[in-house]
Amino acid sequence: MKRERIGIGIDAGGTFTKLIAVSESGKVLGEDSVPTERERGPRPFIRRVAAAVHALERDTGRGGAAGLAVAGDVDSERGVLRRSPNLAPFEGYTLRKAMAAALERPVTMHNDANMAAWGCYALELKRRCPNVVAITMGTGIGGGLVLDGRLYAGPTGSAGEIGHMRVTGDGFPCACGARGCLEAHAGSYGIRRTVKQLLRERPHARSPLREPGAGRFPERASEAARRGDPLAREVWRRVGRALGVGVVNLVYLFNPDAVVFTGGVSRAGDLFLDPVRQALRAESFRAPFGHVRLRSARRRRLGSLGAALYSLEEGGQ
Amino acid sequence: MKRERIGIGIDAGGTFTKLIAVSESGKVLGEDSVPTERERGPRPFIRRVAAAVHALERDTGRGGAAGLAVAGDVDSERGVLRRSPNLAPFEGYTLRKAMAAALERPVTMHNDANMAAWGCYALELKRRCPNVVAITMGTGIGGGLVLDGRLYAGPTGSAGEIGHMRVTGDGFPCACGARGCLEAHAGSYGIRRTVKQLLRERPHARSPLREPGAGRFPERASEAARRGDPLAREVWRRVGRALGVGVVNLVYLFNPDAVVFTGGVSRAGDLFLDPVRQALRAESFRAPFGHVRLRSARRRRLGSLGAALYSLEEGGQ
Repeated sequence: MKRERIGIGIDAGGTFTKLIAVSESGKVLGEDSVPTERERGPRPFIRRVAAAVHALERDTGRGGAAGLAVAGDVDSERGVLRRSPNLAPFEGYTLRKAMAAALERPVTMHNDANMAAWGCYALELKRRCPNVVAITMGTGIGGGLVLDGRLYAGPTGSAGEIGHMRVTGDGFPCACGARGCLEAHAGSYGIRRTVKQLLRERPHARSPLREPGAGRFPERASEAARRGDPLAREVWRRVGRALGVGVVNLVYLFNPDAVVFTGGVSRAGDLFLDPVRQALRAESFRAPFGHVRLRSARRRRLGSLGAALYSLEEGGQ
Repeated sequence: MKRERIGIGIDAGGTFTKLIAVSESGKVLGEDSVPTERERGPRPFIRRVAAAVHALERDTGRGGAAGLAVAGDVDSERGVLRRSPNLAPFEGYTLRKAMAAALERPVTMHNDANMAAWGCYALELKRRCPNVVAITMGTGIGGGLVLDGRLYAGPTGSAGEIGHMRVTGDGFPCACGARGCLEAHAGSYGIRRTVKQLLRERPHARSPLREPGAGRFPERASEAARRGDPLAREVWRRVGRALGVGVVNLVYLFNPDAVVFTGGVSRAGDLFLDPVRQALRAESFRAPFGHVRLRSARRRRLGSLGAALYSLEEGGQ
């Protein structure tokens, strides 16, 4: 029996590494997860991942192309993780080459947000929009670009670092050392800071976000906002305004067919999308602003899904 | 004798339309200029331009591909000028098709900043940098993108509208109706406003920019700054800071090999480039910021030069 091609996406996180086996049409055929154990270094990690890939192939009865998605500053040309707070022990190691040797096949390796962008392009939007900007919303804000139907990563693999675009003159301090970065206002630590700021500004306002620890979680802020809490609604309006400036800039620069929000925090959906839409409506250049579609992604795991599909595209086998 | 191929660039401006004939290697073989006479509408314009193209071909003894560069919002897919304050009577007309019919050959048509970007890529940087952001500095600020060695114009031809990227929270009002756009701070009307602001802030400072009318011209501000006038130097520092925020954003988003400044105002060179370089040095992501090169273009007429060379690339003949 002919073994059909599948793509295997490997999403290397600080604690766990998730694997997903996907058919060329995007159907999920199998999943697995292995501990990353970063402190033991890259070699045992690669052995563990290779064993899991082979097990997935036995289970699905098909051989696969393989793609790595890694959070951090990835040199996709050389297949090296340049910098990654979550995977510091793997920095500088020729991760892609070692993985390709262990799996005996070419392996693609990209920043996880770039792979999420490919997932948005290939799955969420079914390849109908050749120009897609993906915004990944979690602790930080990441981004990935598909332009003219191709992943655009830039010469050092650093393109689409949307989170460090400046969205205001004298905004919150960012983890990168600058001020007013999109991430400092719309990443989960930015949202936490906005909650704190509002609680201080409105000392007499009652809000479930005033309970100890409640302001730490964006989910609590979206629950409270959905139940009508005015303070929580104002939190999301401010987050949406920061995102609005960012998306306006992205539309002027990339003229995308679609901007897709993905990642945990993006599930707040209309709470921040409404102010973003309002910002887009206010712009006078109608051609690009009338053209672009905004959505928050329906699927989860777009990073590993994208890595799986991208490996089928580019990885050969 | 075999007639070698040349490219003819046609830069349609509000008053004059400039033509340039260029060899495939970028050597200028001939030039001409015809009045645009926009108020008479597009048909006589096309006849006049076609006559000038034919004359250039007689002079150089070679047939040419032809490319149009037009300031404004260009639908390059359909070859229509969607909106252009300078060429309002041509809006909505199928300019490219009519020009192609008059010249009996395919014609490319793009926004002038996009063509300047192609000129920067193909001539200034000799095709050695596949990823180039061009910033055109004049009354407004325009932009064009070459990514992976290809012009990126976006689905509605609006990509690279760098001038309307927001660079500050509550900045100067922009011609587009928004506030804090790069153009409102670094276009020539933004520079004029900065001069006015500084003259107000420093009522006792002597400066040649205080002479009636002197603040209207960016050239006067650069002359004064070169002669050491502190107020004029501060003007360019502020312009450079606004550009610095813009270029930082561009590097995060596009990870370009080079950012090239072109257009009249860019001749101020280091007066604004130094603060931009300073802004880039302050960023903590070293891979993209260590990689990018900044320069102000040596050649003039990069819009028409770029249109000529681009027509050889894409226009066929």
